[in-house]
Amino acid sequence: MVEVNATMKVQYYTASTLDGFIATEDDSLEWLFPLGNLEDSSYPDFIAEVGAIAMGSSTYDWILRNSYTVAAETGSPWPYTPPTWVFSSRDLPAFDGADIRFARGDVTGFIDDMHAAARSKNIWIVGGGNLAGQFYDAGLLDELIVQVGSATLGTGKPLFPRRVLSPTLRLESVHQMGPGMVELRYTVTNPADRDS
Amino acid sequence: MVEVNATMKVQYYTASTLDGFIATEDDSLEWLFPLGNLEDSSYPDFIAEVGAIAMGSSTYDWILRNSYTVAAETGSPWPYTPPTWVFSSRDLPAFDGADIRFARGDVTGFIDDMHAAARSKNIWIVGGGNLAGQFYDAGLLDELIVQVGSATLGTGKPLFPRRVLSPTLRLESVHQMGPGMVELRYTVTNPADRDS
Repeated sequence: MVEVNATMKVQYYTASTLDGFIATEDDSLEWLFPLGNLEDSSYPDFIAEVGAIAMGSSTYDWILRNSYTVAAETGSPWPYTPPTWVFSSRDLPAFDGADIRFARGDVTGFIDDMHAAARSKNIWIVGGGNLAGQFYDAGLLDELIVQVGSATLGTGKPLFPRRVLSPTLRLESVHQMGPGMVELRYTVTNPADRDS
Repeated sequence: MVEVNATMKVQYYTASTLDGFIATEDDSLEWLFPLGNLEDSSYPDFIAEVGAIAMGSSTYDWILRNSYTVAAETGSPWPYTPPTWVFSSRDLPAFDGADIRFARGDVTGFIDDMHAAARSKNIWIVGGGNLAGQFYDAGLLDELIVQVGSATLGTGKPLFPRRVLSPTLRLESVHQMGPGMVELRYTVTNPADRDS
């Protein structure tokens, strides 16, 4: 087992509408683009500390299908440098020039490899909500960092399809970024910590 | 038509989980009680400026069925002084000692009476989300004030089942209340204002 440094975190960092959706039903993120600019957000500082990435198949699919939009928003069709684990029960195409590792099954089986690849840095769960939920279920999620955009979708892909009530999340900080966005940072009390 | 003072607002003031639910599927608000205390929140200042209330039938039903809990949390089984319009297509029992007016049909048909009763004060839409949505659809919603609790429900009654993207909401202020809650205040751009 890899020795995990206490400063290494598993972080679900994402944008959500006020009503708790990260994307439309067809996985579009276009609701988000008018509301803020990545470079003016916490993203540059955040990504500098990320050493490995976890991503669900819908998110990966969306990036594949929208490389033009992604390149326009981020400057590159594959905007991530760290090695990326794509969790999927389906066979998916690779992405030229990206360090992608396809993963199938329980997230617990991959966490040691991810920590090893990340070295002293953090693991970023890009999304979707269900993948973040699987890390939570396994007691592996440390932080939830949500940019809440000033919009609602009414329906769509859920931010975090889990019930977290006892203990609840702990709101560590809030940071408004103009009229279009506020960032909320929560720490997660994992089941293992609760029992100790 | 009642002359509406520009300082009179129609406000949807509510608590929501981080994932956009105001209550469980069976209308329970118990997720909320451990997270904050009404008296330490913006509620005393807010309610002092409220002159009329609008409420959906599920919210009203919940108060009727949980008078003991409501009394324990607020000091009274019917915790509101202003006249309250209960919007429902069903026949519902009255509440002894409360100024209840049952309303059926389009919210637009009642807004003048509500403004007249509120005099120079605001109208509070207590909930649920669909009633707030009906005021929004009619171009009557001015502000959305949400206490986002540090919890998720996964499923439940939606905060605001509408798509508000163009123009989006405008985040006016954020106010953290400890680790359990943050208040977000938005102004709503109504269709009538957009067209002018």
